Amino acid sequence: MTFEVPASFISFKSRFGAAIALNIQGGVNPTHWTTEQAPEPHDVYWPFFSVTFINRWISKLVAFVACNALTILFLIPVALVQGLTHLDQLEIMFPSLRSILRMAVVSQVITGYLPIQILQVFLTFVPPIMIMLSSLQGYISWSQIQKSACSKVLRFTIWNLFFANVLSGSALYRLTIFLEPKEFPRVLAEAVPAQASFFIAYVVAFGWTTIASELFQLIPLFYNYINRCFCGVSDNDFEAPSLPYHSEIPRILFFGLLGVTYFILAPLILPFLLVYFCLGYIIYRNQLLNVYVPKYQTGGEFWPTVHTSTIFSLVLMQIIVIGIFGLKKLPLGSALTLPLPILTLLFNEYCQKRFFPIFKAYPAECLIKKDREDQNNPSMSEFYDKLANAYNDPALMPIKYSGLFGSRRLPLLDSSEV
Amino acid sequence: MTFEVPASFISFKSRFGAAIALNIQGGVNPTHWTTEQAPEPHDVYWPFFSVTFINRWISKLVAFVACNALTILFLIPVALVQGLTHLDQLEIMFPSLRSILRMAVVSQVITGYLPIQILQVFLTFVPPIMIMLSSLQGYISWSQIQKSACSKVLRFTIWNLFFANVLSGSALYRLTIFLEPKEFPRVLAEAVPAQASFFIAYVVAFGWTTIASELFQLIPLFYNYINRCFCGVSDNDFEAPSLPYHSEIPRILFFGLLGVTYFILAPLILPFLLVYFCLGYIIYRNQLLNVYVPKYQTGGEFWPTVHTSTIFSLVLMQIIVIGIFGLKKLPLGSALTLPLPILTLLFNEYCQKRFFPIFKAYPAECLIKKDREDQNNPSMSEFYDKLANAYNDPALMPIKYSGLFGSRRLPLLDSSEV
Repeated sequence: MTFEVPASFISFKSRFGAAIALNIQGGVNPTHWTTEQAPEPHDVYWPFFSVTFINRWISKLVAFVACNALTILFLIPVALVQGLTHLDQLEIMFPSLRSILRMAVVSQVITGYLPIQILQVFLTFVPPIMIMLSSLQGYISWSQIQKSACSKVLRFTIWNLFFANVLSGSALYRLTIFLEPKEFPRVLAEAVPAQASFFIAYVVAFGWTTIASELFQLIPLFYNYINRCFCGVSDNDFEAPSLPYHSEIPRILFFGLLGVTYFILAPLILPFLLVYFCLGYIIYRNQLLNVYVPKYQTGGEFWPTVHTSTIFSLVLMQIIVIGIFGLKKLPLGSALTLPLPILTLLFNEYCQKRFFPIFKAYPAECLIKKDREDQNNPSMSEFYDKLANAYNDPALMPIKYSGLFGSRRLPLLDSSEV
Repeated sequence: MTFEVPASFISFKSRFGAAIALNIQGGVNPTHWTTEQAPEPHDVYWPFFSVTFINRWISKLVAFVACNALTILFLIPVALVQGLTHLDQLEIMFPSLRSILRMAVVSQVITGYLPIQILQVFLTFVPPIMIMLSSLQGYISWSQIQKSACSKVLRFTIWNLFFANVLSGSALYRLTIFLEPKEFPRVLAEAVPAQASFFIAYVVAFGWTTIASELFQLIPLFYNYINRCFCGVSDNDFEAPSLPYHSEIPRILFFGLLGVTYFILAPLILPFLLVYFCLGYIIYRNQLLNVYVPKYQTGGEFWPTVHTSTIFSLVLMQIIVIGIFGLKKLPLGSALTLPLPILTLLFNEYCQKRFFPIFKAYPAECLIKKDREDQNNPSMSEFYDKLANAYNDPALMPIKYSGLFGSRRLPLLDSSEV
């Protein structure tokens, strides 16, 4: 009553042994035996546990295409929103509304608040969709899915909130400039300052409110309340939420991008951002310490995303500055600013070489040190006993199969072997 | 009388042990302990043997800048050559030469043969310069230097022979199209067919002659003759030449590029190329078997360069075809060709995943198999004895230092340890 699964968890006597299996290509065909670090037991995402390399590659491709299609389709609500900020166009389209639109309150609500709210409603759907796409991509752990969704949401936010707003807002559909890199600094230098007021309003209307609503946790509260009243779930079943990194990190990074790109063009945005970041520090510190229960150890793996996003913001700001010096007919200024993005990219390159390997694999020095500590640790045999039953595919749980597959959960090799 | 060298050769009991040290990051700082596979003893390039990571990184950067500067400066001879192929411009510049220039023989020589010869004279300086730049880049073996110079020469050739000729020839200084990717297919579709006759002449005048002169080995013959007559070097001192991969591979790949890009625009180039490749096969086969003595085992490491160049040629051809369908007002044709470059790039991506790891490190399967074979091999102890004195820095040779440093050539660890 056994059947084969083309994937398995393997435990090693030492961390160093595991690192060897992880870092050295096993078979002659690099796509046959692929090794990955095992996630924490409760972090495993089982549906893609035993897919082949090629299946994974294809699903990655499909997710990539779907993600790009979503990004392009999202231009429709953005164009809608930007139509609202240009009231004069709306007046031409609906002449009968002119008298209403000319009222100060109405025009302020429509141009200042409504666009951001509409955009926000559409944006709330993005993180769950990206999580769905990432989960189709063949990752075997929730942490990897969330990390991948985080960078997807970040790219989506920067493209659809920053570039689409900037470029469609100031002169509708200038998106073709991405096909003409030479024009890039000039067009950005024209378009970015024109959207300063929109982004200041965005920081206040969206940044401040989300950070405040973060404190109240309205949705979990409401959900819990309904559960208790109608479903008869007791207080003990309440599961503490975990921080949704994939939606929070891109949002904070996006405000960082706004700060870096606008501080030279519209310094008025800075006090608003300062308030946002101060509030954010206080509130998230409280949430992380007292509210959220982490589902897995991130191990600082989100840092490369933050680093890349910061470098991108800096380079973007420097390109905009070059464009502005060009517009102001200061070619010397442009020429002197030109080394800045090059130096930033060189710094990035250096960081990639110096710090990025730490995020990919642990160095042998640390592994061997830890292994030696473990050798003298009397509780290790207990740990190995636990390890044998730590990873259980929910599809093979004894509850469902009435104990028939109980023996499958024992390791293939006895733990005394390597 | 000892001093420290911040680099060393380490021998391992097993191939697998060496692979572990190679593939797993040793220290916490990834730039402190860097490991590389040791080259063959006579392949070591000593000057950069003990440079630090940062020094290497900086020299790589300097070489990159110098290489790009050379590529840009080389546009001057190319423009000169292309001026010659447009005789009418020359007539305007030197009206007194008009009668001579109008002679059929003169104009044929000037437009057909002279440009290629001038270009060729300049091109012969490129491989030695690239070898010099690569040797400054911090590689520790000649094979790595030659591999790096090979891809440098290849990029240089494609840029300065193909793109510069195509774009400057048909309408001087259209090089700015690289800043406008949208225009790329259209401009190429206009410019590439116009240069077909130049490249056919190039294949005959340059391709055929180099392949023939390859057979005669005139320069080594002459050099050897002078040495024997005037320097009194005997026949026994004659060192067999090794194949200069860094100049031969880019040349053959460039002819491949010409074939792939022109077969649809000017099929007349194909018979000339066919003759070139047939001659090349016969002659290089003879040269490799009977004339050249390889200085090191390439281990097929030039293959990724060949693969990348072929993929590049294919994508370039497909872009040109899209442009031509656009020019001929066949938007359906353009649209249907569009998936082709995408599929080619996907194929490339797949090959990168499937085959490229083989060029980076040997799989554990092969290493362990070889190790087990060695365990039963009685000649291994002899091999270890030889190994101890295989690597000798010429700067520390006993001839120069009168035996004082003889002890330095013994390994730091006894070979019985790991």
